Amino acid sequence: MLEQLKQDVYEANMQLPKLNLVTFTWGNVSGIDRERGLFVIKPSGVAYEDLKPADMVVVNLDGEVVEGALNPSSDTPTHTVLYNAFPDIGGIVHTHSPWAVAFASAHMDVPNLNTTAADTFYGNIPVSEALSQQEIEDAYEENTGKVIVKTFHDRGLDYKAVPAVLVSQHGPFSWGATPAKAVYNAKVLEVVAEIDYHALTLTHHDAHLPQYLLDKHYYRKHGANAYYGQDGAKSQEHAAKA
Amino acid sequence: MLEQLKQDVYEANMQLPKLNLVTFTWGNVSGIDRERGLFVIKPSGVAYEDLKPADMVVVNLDGEVVEGALNPSSDTPTHTVLYNAFPDIGGIVHTHSPWAVAFASAHMDVPNLNTTAADTFYGNIPVSEALSQQEIEDAYEENTGKVIVKTFHDRGLDYKAVPAVLVSQHGPFSWGATPAKAVYNAKVLEVVAEIDYHALTLTHHDAHLPQYLLDKHYYRKHGANAYYGQDGAKSQEHAAKA
Amino acid sequence: MLEQLKQDVYEANMQLPKLNLVTFTWGNVSGIDRERGLFVIKPSGVAYEDLKPADMVVVNLDGEVVEGALNPSSDTPTHTVLYNAFPDIGGIVHTHSPWAVAFASAHMDVPNLNTTAADTFYGNIPVSEALSQQEIEDAYEENTGKVIVKTFHDRGLDYKAVPAVLVSQHGPFSWGATPAKAVYNAKVLEVVAEIDYHALTLTHHDAHLPQYLLDKHYYRKHGANAYYGQDGAKSQEHAAKA
Amino acid sequence: MLEQLKQDVYEANMQLPKLNLVTFTWGNVSGIDRERGLFVIKPSGVAYEDLKPADMVVVNLDGEVVEGALNPSSDTPTHTVLYNAFPDIGGIVHTHSPWAVAFASAHMDVPNLNTTAADTFYGNIPVSEALSQQEIEDAYEENTGKVIVKTFHDRGLDYKAVPAVLVSQHGPFSWGATPAKAVYNAKVLEVVAEIDYHALTLTHHDAHLPQYLLDKHYYRKHGANAYYGQDGAKSQEHAAKA
Repeated sequence: MLEQLKQDVYEANMQLPKLNLVTFTWGNVSGIDRERGLFVIKPSGVAYEDLKPADMVVVNLDGEVVEGALNPSSDTPTHTVLYNAFPDIGGIVHTHSPWAVAFASAHMDVPNLNTTAADTFYGNIPVSEALSQQEIEDAYEENTGKVIVKTFHDRGLDYKAVPAVLVSQHGPFSWGATPAKAVYNAKVLEVVAEIDYHALTLTHHDAHLPQYLLDKHYYRKHGANAYYGQDGAKSQEHAAKA
Repeated sequence: MLEQLKQDVYEANMQLPKLNLVTFTWGNVSGIDRERGLFVIKPSGVAYEDLKPADMVVVNLDGEVVEGALNPSSDTPTHTVLYNAFPDIGGIVHTHSPWAVAFASAHMDVPNLNTTAADTFYGNIPVSEALSQQEIEDAYEENTGKVIVKTFHDRGLDYKAVPAVLVSQHGPFSWGATPAKAVYNAKVLEVVAEIDYHALTLTHHDAHLPQYLLDKHYYRKHGANAYYGQDGAKSQEHAAKA
Repeated sequence: MLEQLKQDVYEANMQLPKLNLVTFTWGNVSGIDRERGLFVIKPSGVAYEDLKPADMVVVNLDGEVVEGALNPSSDTPTHTVLYNAFPDIGGIVHTHSPWAVAFASAHMDVPNLNTTAADTFYGNIPVSEALSQQEIEDAYEENTGKVIVKTFHDRGLDYKAVPAVLVSQHGPFSWGATPAKAVYNAKVLEVVAEIDYHALTLTHHDAHLPQYLLDKHYYRKHGANAYYGQDGAKSQEHAAKA
Repeated sequence: MLEQLKQDVYEANMQLPKLNLVTFTWGNVSGIDRERGLFVIKPSGVAYEDLKPADMVVVNLDGEVVEGALNPSSDTPTHTVLYNAFPDIGGIVHTHSPWAVAFASAHMDVPNLNTTAADTFYGNIPVSEALSQQEIEDAYEENTGKVIVKTFHDRGLDYKAVPAVLVSQHGPFSWGATPAKAVYNAKVLEVVAEIDYHALTLTHHDAHLPQYLLDKHYYRKHGANAYYGQDGAKSQEHAAKA
């Protein structure tokens, strides 16, 4: 069942240690088959070197396991909420990558200060609102998904133009058209967070990117007029294999 | 004698360079056989690439060498004190990992600011009280163990819920149910110290984690109601193999 | 056509990931045949592990593709401007290396604070003026080249003595007598930016290098009286193979 | 001539890239045969991957080349001064390792703030006085050696107890009983500089190590009463092979 998707999700998961985005088992990738309304996700707490494509767990959009011998990632309810709320995404990644977690711990956006950020993110990578005690005690992982969706709604953000978030005091979630693209966005976020930390401290938190430079770089790589790569915007979907 | 434990302690020691927790020979792992009241520890000052399981030294709970051709780690008296004072631990690790040593040099706790910390530590990782001149000049390594125990006692900390400490101006000790789990906790401490350094700088030392988020993440992975991994709390004992 | 130059440019491009100067496809190297007035450049958005010498694109000094099945780097117009304005350079590199981008994001020069910098750069590595909205919207990549040239002109800098620049809020371009030498300069810039960040923080931005120490180190490696290496200044052209 | 010493110096040089202490060719190691009054040093500007034991250059204590087809390191006059002034050292290392250079650029000692430093250095690693314009223009490399010696003299430091220095705005030199031990000390300095940077920023430059803790750790590894390792102080001479 969904063998190609399991393979793709497996490969995207294996990119996380290769790209230095996870320590131990602290990350997971999922990918969805929109026609069948089923997604495939890494099992919980399995070491990357032991992982096999057949270990991937199949889950439906109610968050119920449909196939798989192992427990799915404990973050599965978060993925479920995001797939329901963001209809155009095909893959989701969660990590505890250290620069992104530093900003999440500080309850700060990763600001968009340079073209490295602007090439991928149309604006800041937002930090979510904090979950209330009630939201944490009841259905924590589901409410983590809901607070992400609420943050994008309240701040008027387009999830396709800003394909990542920091959950406050927790860490990053990213997404994309495919699992590989979601991994790519997770790595860009981590690189940008590292650069921004240093730019913020060099300037005592006084650095800004003009809107027209953000527009130029974002639309150079995205949308109908994209001209980076070998076939404009399409080529970006495959960038994470590097 | 204790061949399986020697192998386990050897393998846990070899994880230290693999996880970037040691430079040269600056680290050691021990593991205990509680039934026999004997522990096994790395020999002093031996390079990791030369280490063999048979080099491990067997020591009793009075700190006396029972078997082994080599001198045990110079930190053996510290391990002895901790095994006597903390009856439920099965392994101990000492390193000079650089982010943890930075906090120890600053005589600061590694604060619990995010879910990465809360998944493993139920609160701050404490910095010990400083040893007095007398304590340093007399039985230094034994007194290092005693000041760790005193710090946990005076601050009302549970050594099972906070399985690591910074010895002031020295460096981290961690422990766990097994040698592998103690290594896992040493790595988590180092990762958390790195993240916290940056979060503290970004916020001018003004970051905090709410108690209910600490509770949620800690108990998601520990205790009777744990639900992370493939068999709840048990799976955490094996996590350090990754 | 230009097979040896394609091979050299290919090899220089492959040094970028080896020297930890690029993430994904975010970098490019070109090299010029001054007699024919043609330069060779990496194709746009191709992963380094897929790159072959035959993929290199040949471009003339009007920026027109002369040979090649793939689109050239989207930064080709910047390279074209630099080859026309700086007649003695043989190779150009662009990266998003993170320490250099941090200074670019802060709109700050990388200051020349130590002999590591002085060995390669005769003064600060300048940050360019910001491009105007008009310059960004019209012929952005060409205007990026022009603002680099204008910065060197307005500040009275010699492009041979200071073989790199930070484009404001974007990132570094470097150059040299050959593609390999341009890569060497890109790496030196990144190392110097890392060191300088820490030196500036340690001193609260109050560190300076005396002119006579800058003179000594720069001219020890460059010009008629150079005496570093096996044949004075010439040996520096080949240093980037390490 | 001096084949074993050439081999030892070659191996010590090759440790520099393995221990992440050099970029490109920016480092050199020498070792001396005290009976013959000759030392062996890396040739200038040769890439580490091309280096062979036979490339090592033999120099006498007047700084004159006695054997070797290649130019010796441009820092040879500095080594010559140090071998003459410090009669008990057997090897010298110079690098541009980035954390040490950051402190040198800041004209700051690397302070002795923790037992990691105290295990190797009996006090701060001093930054040298700055060279005058005259000293830089005349016999620069020789005067670099002289300012190191003068710094140790003026500050009353014992070169055996503090086996390294930062040359102001330049970088570290270290030494030891053997070339391998000098490399060991170069690595310890770099690790300590990294830790200290973070401890100083965490504490706003307010961290100190008590004298009795410095005494305990230094003499635990050095001198007649050393008890670390398999044979006390002797074992430290071989530690850099790890």
